[in-house]
Amino acid sequence: MERIPEKHAFRGKAACIAVGSELLGDAKLDLNSLEITQTLETYGFNVVEKRVVGDSVERIAASIRELMNGCEVVIVTGGLGPTADDVTREGVALALARELFFDPEVEVWLQERYQRVGRTMPEIGRSMAMVVEDSEIIRNTAGSAPGILVEEDGRLLAVFPGVPWEMRSMVESHLKARLEQRYDGSIRRSRTLLMGGVVESEVEGRIRHLYDRFGRDNVTILASFGVLRLVLTATGAEAQVEQDLDRMEEAFREILGDDVAGIDIPGLAHVVIPALVDSDKTLATAESCTGGLVGAALTNVSGSSDAYMGGVVSYSNQAKEEMVGVPHEILVEHGAVSEPVVRAMAEEIRKRFGTDWGLGVTGIAGPSGGTDEKPVGLVHWAVAGPDGVVARHRVFPGDREIVRQWSVNVVLDLLRRQLLVGAK
Amino acid sequence: MERIPEKHAFRGKAACIAVGSELLGDAKLDLNSLEITQTLETYGFNVVEKRVVGDSVERIAASIRELMNGCEVVIVTGGLGPTADDVTREGVALALARELFFDPEVEVWLQERYQRVGRTMPEIGRSMAMVVEDSEIIRNTAGSAPGILVEEDGRLLAVFPGVPWEMRSMVESHLKARLEQRYDGSIRRSRTLLMGGVVESEVEGRIRHLYDRFGRDNVTILASFGVLRLVLTATGAEAQVEQDLDRMEEAFREILGDDVAGIDIPGLAHVVIPALVDSDKTLATAESCTGGLVGAALTNVSGSSDAYMGGVVSYSNQAKEEMVGVPHEILVEHGAVSEPVVRAMAEEIRKRFGTDWGLGVTGIAGPSGGTDEKPVGLVHWAVAGPDGVVARHRVFPGDREIVRQWSVNVVLDLLRRQLLVGAK
Repeated sequence: MERIPEKHAFRGKAACIAVGSELLGDAKLDLNSLEITQTLETYGFNVVEKRVVGDSVERIAASIRELMNGCEVVIVTGGLGPTADDVTREGVALALARELFFDPEVEVWLQERYQRVGRTMPEIGRSMAMVVEDSEIIRNTAGSAPGILVEEDGRLLAVFPGVPWEMRSMVESHLKARLEQRYDGSIRRSRTLLMGGVVESEVEGRIRHLYDRFGRDNVTILASFGVLRLVLTATGAEAQVEQDLDRMEEAFREILGDDVAGIDIPGLAHVVIPALVDSDKTLATAESCTGGLVGAALTNVSGSSDAYMGGVVSYSNQAKEEMVGVPHEILVEHGAVSEPVVRAMAEEIRKRFGTDWGLGVTGIAGPSGGTDEKPVGLVHWAVAGPDGVVARHRVFPGDREIVRQWSVNVVLDLLRRQLLVGAK
Repeated sequence: MERIPEKHAFRGKAACIAVGSELLGDAKLDLNSLEITQTLETYGFNVVEKRVVGDSVERIAASIRELMNGCEVVIVTGGLGPTADDVTREGVALALARELFFDPEVEVWLQERYQRVGRTMPEIGRSMAMVVEDSEIIRNTAGSAPGILVEEDGRLLAVFPGVPWEMRSMVESHLKARLEQRYDGSIRRSRTLLMGGVVESEVEGRIRHLYDRFGRDNVTILASFGVLRLVLTATGAEAQVEQDLDRMEEAFREILGDDVAGIDIPGLAHVVIPALVDSDKTLATAESCTGGLVGAALTNVSGSSDAYMGGVVSYSNQAKEEMVGVPHEILVEHGAVSEPVVRAMAEEIRKRFGTDWGLGVTGIAGPSGGTDEKPVGLVHWAVAGPDGVVARHRVFPGDREIVRQWSVNVVLDLLRRQLLVGAK
């Protein structure tokens, strides 16, 4: 449990509010907060909450009040435009119990801005010249609606337009300087250990005793269909933070060993491709249930063409026979989703492409096609290399998309581990 | 401005809370709330706020209290797992001022669940058997952590695991029935027209005059690397809403014609596969720069095996020659990224797989590999069918991932349009 101290508990904490009813539907997401979070973390702020609120003065005001209570920095985006549903200015004024008044100087800026793009400011544009008492107005160099900066009780409230490039330009021109002033030299930085072929609760059991040593809040486990990310975080002066992260990484690696595939990389393909390139080896793939996802993951790594020669998506049995070279008898006897077939896929694709390594995966991704003996989620995978073939299988939980994602990760992890054996 | 009536102002309003510190970083987004919002809107609820909060008992509790104050339905996802940072149960108990107690019956469920997947429940799993006083426990049929339902003061609080399919299964089995009970007959529903091969500003120009007729707020355009989604929305009684959406769809279709690929479908593959299956035709693919993404998109459609026979990922020139059958001279004379090569890829893969249609795509996804003549982003694509080959090319903006996404969509859209020609 987090302790709430009486005083200064708001220091170093930050929150984001995105305003706009369109961000509450099922089609559009608030992405501004991702960029703002990056900036906040660079200056050592810890984002403790994010909100999306509709175009309601009361809701905007309540959120600003609630978050300014517990945070040093609150960033609001959106709702500053000229139309009737743009009510963020009113929300800010209500939250701070300040007046809104018309600023003729801002109106002149706005008129100039419209003229520059060859238009006349519409009457409704005047609403953007309403300013909050005792606030700093940020002139919008990338659009029209001005931004707002308010300092109160040691807090900073920054209000930017929702248009990404307008927001971005104000973050650069105004927010960073204000955060810099508050910067106490303490930053917050993370390092992510990517793991393959492990189960969350098992890993948790192995590393649990390290929580006390490094702090429970500094270690987060994220599981995602065959890969696990262990996020280590440290806060402090820049030089100290890197040392702390080195110490943490060392301690976790000591326990997790080869289960750690890499550091700060997006996925297992980003380990496999460099490992192949460094050892001057090549790879080909034969995919069934993944339908090309393994190839897509591998070729998502820039420079993959030095190691990945290509593959066959053998969705039909005919393709497995003719394009990959799986013997007809094996297919008939064992069925397309079986260990003998996946072994043949890995071996034969290796031969066809003349590569050092070959990889095969076949399974029943669902929702249909399952039987009692071979249920939906059953996947066989194999890796063929200089020393023979290794095959595995498992029944994965989840829907079609998830079974496919699991399949990609387990086959890449098996290849990763075989490459490690080869390198030792 | 929104009026806040004294009583029952919470009726019809809903909010979502996603719990997890990992959702507050710059890398991961809360997507569960999108699906939950769809369900809430189907039952006429208006989502007025969404929050993401870290793994802090106090913050979770404060958010639940604040949102239950103004909303009839509050949905919380995440933080129900067995690890030490899963503190949502404690947050719920604190928010409602109820006790948490250990439920041996739930422990038995959990043990059974672990046994079914061939594992023993670890000691930390017992934390998932802690239940909130006077709540309904939802048994997790897709995972382990149970969900929670609480009714209080006319409000519904539902708490689901953050794992998408576990959340989804509880929405189906429990949430929908509870929302149905509260349903007052007024719903908000959307219909999405998926378009391929169009440019946003051009579409905007063609449909602009319809905004006044149907209301600007009821039409949203979302662009995404080669596909455009036009979201039409209507509010009211169920029968009326469907009529309104029919009228809107008809008006937009009249203008957009064949640019509309389909209604309420996730992507172009979901048009292409049914079109092939319905006409009893088959398809094979030869991919270079997309590395398997086209195959992955096609096989993401359940039942695709009836039409999609498979393909070759020909990442190397050797694979283009030997596995696809592109003549050596063409590769040497024109280079791998050229119209003659992509035409040969589409034609030859069609022959090799013996399919009705063949599809080829080759390009320079970047970041390296570009020249003055063939810049990064240059992509050639082609479709071969009974009446010959059609080829196109374009230089796409964006990074590697985006160029690849564009490539998938343009080649699928070209195939879609060729299938339409064939059907006419």
